[in-house]
Order: sequence, then structure tokens, then C-alpha cells
Amino acid sequence: MNAHIISIGDEILIGQIVNTNAAWMAEELNQVGVHVDQIVTIADGHEAIKDAVAQAEKEADIILITGGLGPTKDDITKKALAEYFGLEMAYHEPSFNNIQTLFAQFGREPDDRYKIQAEMPVGADIMINKVGTASGMWFQKNGKVTVSMPGVPREMKYLMSKEVLPRLHEHFSTPTILHKTLLTTGKGETDLSGLLSELEDGLPENIKLAYLPNTLKGQVRLRLSARGEDEAVLQKQLDENAIKITKLLGTLVFGEGKQTLSESIGLLLKNKNATLGIAESCTGGNVAHHITLVPGCSDYFKGSVVTYANELKMKILGVKKSTLDEYGAVSEQTVKEMVLGAIQNIGVDYAVATSGIAGPGGGHPDKPVGTIWIAVGDKDKVFTKKLQLGKDRERNIQLTTTIVMNTLRRFLLDDLDVDKITSYLG
Amino acid sequence: MNAHIISIGDEILIGQIVNTNAAWMAEELNQVGVHVDQIVTIADGHEAIKDAVAQAEKEADIILITGGLGPTKDDITKKALAEYFGLEMAYHEPSFNNIQTLFAQFGREPDDRYKIQAEMPVGADIMINKVGTASGMWFQKNGKVTVSMPGVPREMKYLMSKEVLPRLHEHFSTPTILHKTLLTTGKGETDLSGLLSELEDGLPENIKLAYLPNTLKGQVRLRLSARGEDEAVLQKQLDENAIKITKLLGTLVFGEGKQTLSESIGLLLKNKNATLGIAESCTGGNVAHHITLVPGCSDYFKGSVVTYANELKMKILGVKKSTLDEYGAVSEQTVKEMVLGAIQNIGVDYAVATSGIAGPGGGHPDKPVGTIWIAVGDKDKVFTKKLQLGKDRERNIQLTTTIVMNTLRRFLLDDLDVDKITSYLG
Repeated sequence: MNAHIISIGDEILIGQIVNTNAAWMAEELNQVGVHVDQIVTIADGHEAIKDAVAQAEKEADIILITGGLGPTKDDITKKALAEYFGLEMAYHEPSFNNIQTLFAQFGREPDDRYKIQAEMPVGADIMINKVGTASGMWFQKNGKVTVSMPGVPREMKYLMSKEVLPRLHEHFSTPTILHKTLLTTGKGETDLSGLLSELEDGLPENIKLAYLPNTLKGQVRLRLSARGEDEAVLQKQLDENAIKITKLLGTLVFGEGKQTLSESIGLLLKNKNATLGIAESCTGGNVAHHITLVPGCSDYFKGSVVTYANELKMKILGVKKSTLDEYGAVSEQTVKEMVLGAIQNIGVDYAVATSGIAGPGGGHPDKPVGTIWIAVGDKDKVFTKKLQLGKDRERNIQLTTTIVMNTLRRFLLDDLDVDKITSYLG
Repeated sequence: MNAHIISIGDEILIGQIVNTNAAWMAEELNQVGVHVDQIVTIADGHEAIKDAVAQAEKEADIILITGGLGPTKDDITKKALAEYFGLEMAYHEPSFNNIQTLFAQFGREPDDRYKIQAEMPVGADIMINKVGTASGMWFQKNGKVTVSMPGVPREMKYLMSKEVLPRLHEHFSTPTILHKTLLTTGKGETDLSGLLSELEDGLPENIKLAYLPNTLKGQVRLRLSARGEDEAVLQKQLDENAIKITKLLGTLVFGEGKQTLSESIGLLLKNKNATLGIAESCTGGNVAHHITLVPGCSDYFKGSVVTYANELKMKILGVKKSTLDEYGAVSEQTVKEMVLGAIQNIGVDYAVATSGIAGPGGGHPDKPVGTIWIAVGDKDKVFTKKLQLGKDRERNIQLTTTIVMNTLRRFLLDDLDVDKITSYLG
């Protein structure tokens, strides 16, 4: 089963927006066993749309179109598709009723433009879009399926999840495919595949393991896919193999599905009924920002100080003047005192600290740009580590944030192994 | 002059990465007057590549291809293109010399795989890629130009800027087009175009004004483009119109080109030789994160406290217990005391504060989710404002960050006008 995606949008062709819709759809289709072999972006024009569909029909079983629908456009897409499939347009009452329902939520009534938006090709299967005013359309011809959806990401995702994917599964009798994703950080794809090579060799025919690295986040997702008939059997296979992988990788695995590193840390702190404080210098608030993206974090997160100025390191965190004078702000001694000061002055069980030269300027021969000290601890022990990163300020901030959060997670798990952390930077 | 972009990459077709290359190229091409009317992503396969080029040649003057080059691939792209254009492959010494130079920077020697990577189609114009091992290729046939570049964004951008765009300008004798971009925040596209309608009507034929909104950042870029022969004349036209726009929009304009809001704030603080402190609650460190993304910010940024817990608002910022008891943490009185406390305790000239219910939980009937107070001030006066945002935690954090930074900028400019700030949220 193969698909082509057609994105309609002048904003994409002038580079004003990036085509994230196509990436999302491709991943969803891939997960249900539909192979995307072309993604094409075209202009919002009658002929361009008809040509693109005709071209796609030569090669694909499924053609998914997004964009070019909406009240402010002339609905070029809808008319082009109606003409292409030889269908008449007519007022479609369920579509207008849906628009009325959406407007009623804001105590308003749709005006006449929306009557035109509710005109649909007669003979197409109309998919009501409960989160927007443009309905989706499903066309069938010569065993091929062509679907048109609005380009607003939230509306496209709604129609894909609720209508298009279930219909494709039914229409093409595609096999059932279930997935389970494990999230890892701390090692790259190559190292992970080395650790898992034996397991991979022993996987049953119907189970596949995919490595999905995200270098910006310093994470690799491991996606197990099981293909077959009986959902319960597949789920059991996935669960068993996920357990095996977790045993092999240990604390390299930090979560499942769409969990974030901050959420994993939040769960660990909640389980310990413990609190967290943060003392940042070079990361400038980014660690606190990530921790506070998690709803309900006020249960365990008390506060953070960003002590860019040395006076504040002394005043708010109680770092000793003699430490700063003797070792400098970017030193093991300073981050250790920052952690202990945060525990005491913020009044928390655990704290993390960062201090470094994020760059691009400010380096010295003995402390070049990218020299960063991190520390994690409780009142009894503090783990410190020196990182030697690059010259890109933004990347240094992001990478230090990920590393310090992962170090905190492993500290909470009582699993700090310096070698493994070092290899992260490999 | 029109172009097609062909992106080669299985990672894009399975949705693992988003095609940001195509968006960047489309914007660059658009700026030099080349119209992109199709972007297509295909698999890394011999036939797929030849078919895509043949298809593109029917409709486009320029075909730009990225991806499918590199030492770990079989160089399918290179061979497919050589075959398509009827060219032989041969070892290309300048390409191998470039690879050697790149390796020498790390004290290493390239192995034999790189001799294969240095094989190039004879008759194509080879463009040396000084930032990577895969050379670019320029093919000409029947007045059309086909270019192949590596898919690594940094390498593609290098070749586009240094080789492809200048060559296209020369080859097609395209007119000179200069640009100047003004950055605005505080009003949407519709309001801005209302303020600029008279100016737009009076623009000379060769000057165009484009509105480029970024809703995530709450900003609209205004891009002036001048097309003609004489660079000096065009530059003068751009400068004059940029001044006119800035006069009409006043402080809605915060910068030019690629400047960020944080950089504008940094410049203002440097000019005043003043310092900044931050006291965040609901934004959780994100304001400090943005301020500290600017290199050299330690000249004016002293520090920040994220006081999630009320005890810390009292302890570190000196917010009065009676204030918290009487008005609550999310109140005008609290953010005002946070600003004054930050000025005193961080020891700075200016401070900003945020406190609100970021969501999705934690709302009350009188303070629903999305209720956020911000404050900006110096020791003499504090400006406060209540925002009523939505239910999306991440968006609330980002939007509050933008608004509080823009409010700070306008406070520093002595230009706070409550109506204008209110309309931002319109």
C-alpha cells in the first residue's frame, strides 16, 4: 500500500512556513504500514491541483491532500477536485450544521460565506470536521482513494485520526499494526544498536525495531512495531520485548510514548515526595523552563535562581568569595557550593547547578568556550562533572540542559556512572 | 524565472525529519525573484530521481536537488544524474583535495571511500563544498539548469549562498533585488496593513512590501524588496521607505534583519548603561532563558529568580505575607512587589515579573486558567498589566514571555500605552 501526499500552499512555496503537516502524516501512515513515496507541494491553483492528482494517481493507491480549503479562499481545491472526478457541487447541510455548532460555542452565527463553504461535491464521502469549518472529502475511483483535508494542522490531525486512518484500515483491509515507543538518552544510535543486536536478531518476523534519533534533544526513540491479526497477541509481544529492551539498556531508557525528560523527573520526585531547586548560571533559566513546562510541577519544584553575576552567587546561594577568587565561577568548587546553597536557601531536598562559558566569546586558554561544570546533589552528596562542548551558544545551552536533567534523573535513581555520562558526549 | 525543488530523503518520507531545507531555499529563491512552483520529496532511488528530474524539466527553468549524496550512501543521486544527462563518471581531483583539506583540520587522512565520493560526472560544473565532503554539481541542458547539493542543511546553505545563487543571477541575468526587513511586535498583519495602506499605495512600481507573520513568536516581519539595476539607488529607496514605515509604526518596530527582541532589549540597556533583573513565576525561567541567549548579556543581566513557591516570593523577593494572603500570588499587588523586590535584592536598575495560572489546571472561577499578571519597572514606577490568555500551558508561557519582553522594551523607550498593549492580544 503506497501513498502520495499533496500539500497545497503558497506559504510553503515562498518558504514562509515549513511543511510540518506532511511529516506528521508520513509518520502516522508509516505506522499503519502505508508507505509514503512522494510528498509534493504545489500552488493554490486549479490546474496545478488537477495535474498533481492526475500525476499521483498513476503511482499511488492513496492520495492525501491538505490545504486550499477555507472561507477566505475561493475553495479552489474543492472545485478542482469536483471537476477532476466529474462531480457536481451542492449545498451540504451537515457541513453547514457543523459550522453553526462551532459558531454557537462563541454565541455567534455564521454569515453567508459559510453557506458557500458548505457546498460539497455530490458523490464524495464528506467527513465532518468537528474542530474547524472546512469538511474533509473522500473520493474513490478505480480502487484508489483521494482524500482532501484542510491545511490547519489541528484540523488535519483531527480528520486523520478520527476519519482517514480508520477508513484506510477498513477500505484496504490493512493488517493491524501496534507500536510501543521507548525513550532513551545517554547514548547514540550506533551504541544502542550494539547493545540490542542480539535481541534484534531474535525478534519474531512480525516485530520490527526502529531507531529514531533526535540530535537536537540528544535522544533516541526506539519504536517497536508488531504486525498481525490479533491485537491482544501483538500487545503482549510488544510489552514483552519492551521489558527485554529496558533490561538491556537499564537507565538509558527514561520513558515511553510521548513522555519528556522533565516528566520523568517529575514522576521520580513525586514518588520520593521530594522537592527540587535549581541554580543556573550558563543555562540562564532554561533548566527551570523545561522543568516548569510540566503541568503540576509546583508539587515538587520550589524555585530557581539564575545567578549570572558573581555577587548573586554569593548573596543568594552563599557561594564563598574565596571559592570564586581561587577557582573562578566556572569550576567544580563553585557548582558544588551552588547546589548546597540552593538546597539550603531555596529549602529543597535536591538541587542542580550549572556554570560555564556558553560562548561564543569569553573563553580563556585554560577554560575555552564550551567548558561547563554541572552538579547534582542532595544535602549529603554532590555529583559534579565537567563538560567540554562546542562554540555554539544556543546548542551549548540546550545540550547542557539535557545533560543536567539526565544527570538529575540518574542521581534520583541512584545510578550515576561517570563513564556512561562521558560517553553521551562521545 | 521558475524553479522546482527536489528533496531526496527517506527520512522525510517516513516523517522522521521535517523538510526545513526546502523552506529555506524557497525563501532565498523568492528573494532573488525566482518563483518556486513545486517542492517534491522523493525516495533515494535511481529511477525515482531520474523520473523526478524529467518531470521537473517539463515545467521549470531551474531544478534544485538536495540530498542523496555522501560517503555512506551509494551515491545514487550522482549516478542517476550522470545517466540522465548522458555523462561519464571520473575521479575529480579538486573534490578529493577538498576532502583532504577538511580531514587535515582534524589531523586525519580520508580513506578510500572518499576517492569514490570524489568521482564526478564529466561535463558537469563541480562546485567545491568547503564545509563538507560532497561537492555540488551544476548541469546545463536546453537552457535549463539542474543543481545537486548535499542534504546537510549547513552544506546546502553554504553552496546556495556562495555558488548557486550568484551563478543563477549571472546565468539568467536576473534583475538585482535588494531587501530590508523590519521586525514588529504588538499588532497583527491586518492592523499593520491598515496603518501602512497609504504608504503602500504610494510605493514606486519597483518596491514591494511583504507581511510575514510568525504567530508563535507574536511577531510580523515587514520585508521591503527593491528590484532594478543600480544597487546604490535601490539601497537608497529601501532605506527611505524603512524610515517612513518606522515613523508610521513607531515603537511597534523593534529591530531589523535577524535581530531578536532580546537583542533589542540588550542594546537599549547597554545604551542606558543599566542593569536588569527578572522575577518569574508562571513563565518558569523562560524570560531569563531568552534574555541569556544573547552573547555578552552579562554586561546588563545580573540574575533572575523563579519563585514558584510562595515562601520564596517572600524570602528572596521580599513580597509581603499580607499581600499574598489578601490578594493571592496571581495579582497586581504581588507582581508589583516582585519587581520592587528584584530591583532591591538582585541589585538592578530595572526588573520584570510574571505571575499567573499557566494551566491546564489550577484555575478558579474568579481567576480562570490563562489569567496572568505582568509587571515592569524601575525603583520609581512600576507598570502592571493583566493578561487573559488561553488554556494551553506552553503557549501561555511563550506568549507571556514575548509580551513581558516587549513591555520591558517599551518601558525602556518611555513609550507605554496601555491601549496598544491590550490590542496585542486582540
